[in-house]
Amino acid sequence: MTADPFVVIGGDAAGLSAASKCKREDPDREVVVFERGRWVSYAHCGTPYYVKGEVADLTDLLSLSPEAAADRGIDLRREHEVTGIDTDERAVTVRGPDGDRHDQPYDDLLVATGGRALTDPIEGADLAGAFSLHGMDDAAAIRAALEPAGEATVESLGGGDFLDPTVIEPYADWQPPETVAIVGGGYVGVEMAEAFTAHGLDVHVFQRGDHVLGPFGEAVGERVEAELRDRGVTLHLGETVERLVGDERVERLACAGGTALDVDLALVGVGIQPNVSLLADTPVELGDSGAVAVDDYGRTSADGVYAAGDCAEARHAVTGAFDWVPLGLTANRAGRAIGQTVAGDPKQTGDIAGTAVVKAFDQECGRTGIVDHERAEAAGFDPVSETVTTRSRSGYYPGAAETVVTLTADRETGRLLGGTIVGTDRAAVRIDTVATALEADMTVAEVETLDLAYAPPFSPVWDPVLTAAKVLNGSLAD
Amino acid sequence: MTADPFVVIGGDAAGLSAASKCKREDPDREVVVFERGRWVSYAHCGTPYYVKGEVADLTDLLSLSPEAAADRGIDLRREHEVTGIDTDERAVTVRGPDGDRHDQPYDDLLVATGGRALTDPIEGADLAGAFSLHGMDDAAAIRAALEPAGEATVESLGGGDFLDPTVIEPYADWQPPETVAIVGGGYVGVEMAEAFTAHGLDVHVFQRGDHVLGPFGEAVGERVEAELRDRGVTLHLGETVERLVGDERVERLACAGGTALDVDLALVGVGIQPNVSLLADTPVELGDSGAVAVDDYGRTSADGVYAAGDCAEARHAVTGAFDWVPLGLTANRAGRAIGQTVAGDPKQTGDIAGTAVVKAFDQECGRTGIVDHERAEAAGFDPVSETVTTRSRSGYYPGAAETVVTLTADRETGRLLGGTIVGTDRAAVRIDTVATALEADMTVAEVETLDLAYAPPFSPVWDPVLTAAKVLNGSLAD
Repeated sequence: MTADPFVVIGGDAAGLSAASKCKREDPDREVVVFERGRWVSYAHCGTPYYVKGEVADLTDLLSLSPEAAADRGIDLRREHEVTGIDTDERAVTVRGPDGDRHDQPYDDLLVATGGRALTDPIEGADLAGAFSLHGMDDAAAIRAALEPAGEATVESLGGGDFLDPTVIEPYADWQPPETVAIVGGGYVGVEMAEAFTAHGLDVHVFQRGDHVLGPFGEAVGERVEAELRDRGVTLHLGETVERLVGDERVERLACAGGTALDVDLALVGVGIQPNVSLLADTPVELGDSGAVAVDDYGRTSADGVYAAGDCAEARHAVTGAFDWVPLGLTANRAGRAIGQTVAGDPKQTGDIAGTAVVKAFDQECGRTGIVDHERAEAAGFDPVSETVTTRSRSGYYPGAAETVVTLTADRETGRLLGGTIVGTDRAAVRIDTVATALEADMTVAEVETLDLAYAPPFSPVWDPVLTAAKVLNGSLAD
Repeated sequence: MTADPFVVIGGDAAGLSAASKCKREDPDREVVVFERGRWVSYAHCGTPYYVKGEVADLTDLLSLSPEAAADRGIDLRREHEVTGIDTDERAVTVRGPDGDRHDQPYDDLLVATGGRALTDPIEGADLAGAFSLHGMDDAAAIRAALEPAGEATVESLGGGDFLDPTVIEPYADWQPPETVAIVGGGYVGVEMAEAFTAHGLDVHVFQRGDHVLGPFGEAVGERVEAELRDRGVTLHLGETVERLVGDERVERLACAGGTALDVDLALVGVGIQPNVSLLADTPVELGDSGAVAVDDYGRTSADGVYAAGDCAEARHAVTGAFDWVPLGLTANRAGRAIGQTVAGDPKQTGDIAGTAVVKAFDQECGRTGIVDHERAEAAGFDPVSETVTTRSRSGYYPGAAETVVTLTADRETGRLLGGTIVGTDRAAVRIDTVATALEADMTVAEVETLDLAYAPPFSPVWDPVLTAAKVLNGSLAD
């Protein structure tokens, strides 16, 4: 008896990683991937740099073409939307590009439906000229809106045969905007501030909280704010945007406290949520986060159904509990592991540490683990943090730049819980040292005696991470 | 009864770190540091960049001035050479600047006598114009030899009141050299090739082995060799330099195989050895390496006698055995720990992993742990290595540079043993991820699932280290 296929819902990072790995390990296994859009396997994190203009063609962001997927033996069907899952019958209902529906049986099923941009509760976020940046079509639309009237075409945008011309049509006769409001000072907000500035726009960032890049903590936030201001970006901190206003297109932004601004364009980047509506009538359970609950192998509560990527939870290395941290590597890694598991060689998807880096003009920012004290306390820790400002290189060596490191540890055990870093000189990649130490359950005392690299062009004798560990270890001893 | 002082022999990284920490923890303790030269606490690793001209003054390399040491309550005596140690009487014999000798009792003694440059077995290495680079006086002498006749003065070299004018006098009327031979393609050789090239010299590097930077392995060596050649440096690999020849000063270099070269200057950088001659008639035991044997607290075989820095061994994180890897951080860290121990709060000096980084023009090189298979086998491992060439950033992002990572693991246990990296874009600091994983005794499978940072400007989705782990893990499974 031949098994029914391994069916994958979603042709992006998690879905195609799983499909590729499964076919590599078990070439005889039939693998079918349904992707509701035209785009597959693209670098989501690259879209701000496409809008900025540093990446010429939208198709440059593709990491696996449909042809390459076919070469791997994957039956990839674009513009096929899965509209229902029957876990008893082990079949999904699929609507094809012509609107016809059919049922596809599966033996194993991977839900890799990703996330979608939040726009709630901002009124008017559906006005023309109000964008989110979640996916390639959004990126194309924003770029089209930045071009002089009549200049943006599928070809000029490098959309290949993936970009539906109707995505950019609404902006065909728009003149380039002068003022843009970015709602939300998270990753997308900060990266897009850089992108819009590169186009010469007057950029305003509205952030509800006191600091941008909230998950990176105050020390990073403050430095990034200084950088944004230096680059001419206007920050509106502590402002809750209530609505975008306009007739046919967005013309004005209004905050809860009365602040208002005339704008030509708005970008709403207030976060994403897991795309799980497809699971509403299935026995596949969601976790507390609202994303799909899984075990260490990515298995959901329904037999033969896996979930991975931005729609799924993963186990957090610090708390040991399942959590939802939608990031690119997590999706790729979990997809790949599930592909191997489905092929008959079970592999855990791996813990997450919430490690993330972001570029804010010249500031490189990194974070990992748990740095927020409330969150640490909720997980049962007694957090202590120290922030140090050191140099990236020996002080006498040209190019030594201020580097700010915050480390957080548990007072009782001394265990490292998390850390952040910010600086202009090789700061971001240094967070990997902290992430590795976290995942190894190291104490701060152990981190303090790590034999890290030293040479004047790259680091002071005591690496910034070691200096932070030394200071934090001192505090723990008090 | 008041204890006798804590006496430190050697006023550099280990010695002054110990003295400073002891005074900080126990301000009432008398701490006496004897330094036979004029210089104290300088950045040895910065000297090539001084010679290059990127660091203006030699005194910029000082990390603690004698005045600052005095402010910390340290009794620092420069130009005081310890000529004998009596471990029964707990006293050292000291010769002061005027030649007078006196005895100084100690309660605790730290031997921090450092290392010295090897010149054996090269004949003629004592000729004028044949230099080593070990210490500030060497750096000053080389810079003086590069300057036009009559231009080098203590003031122009930024020697402050530390530089003895007699150090540079021999080069006062020399004309700038045109051709320089560097004997040895290790750290010093590679860094000095860059320094001499910056002065417009015709630079020749002679390396006995097949590759430069031997401890970094072949993959790094080959890439650095390409870089050196690109920059106009002539490499003579597999050549054993036998002698330097000249009347009053070096004029010619001759190799065992018959190769010869007319030169104006020679730099011999074939390694260092621990400075332990002072211990010859004492019961302080040396290890197999020839450096001082110590325990995890830096204690030698003689009661109350510690050793740290380039003259001492340290425990290796991978083998668990004591080894000699003279590096700056090790010296600072061990000194600091011993200072704390002497002050009554015992602290281990910490394991070493042999983590090192070096800049070769634009190539950043890193290494950690054990990468040499013979050495791994000698330590009881069954080593397997894989080398991958990846990119430093997402492929579509500007500035993505080839990055070559080699990881080595033990076949049976999968334990990570070591790694190397080379590349032009943020490569060096990535070795810290490998070093941290090593010290945490991680397996390659654990490294493969580390949640490392990803953002297009800083890393591909799979960090180069993760890609290498993935490939090596695959090999281990074969």
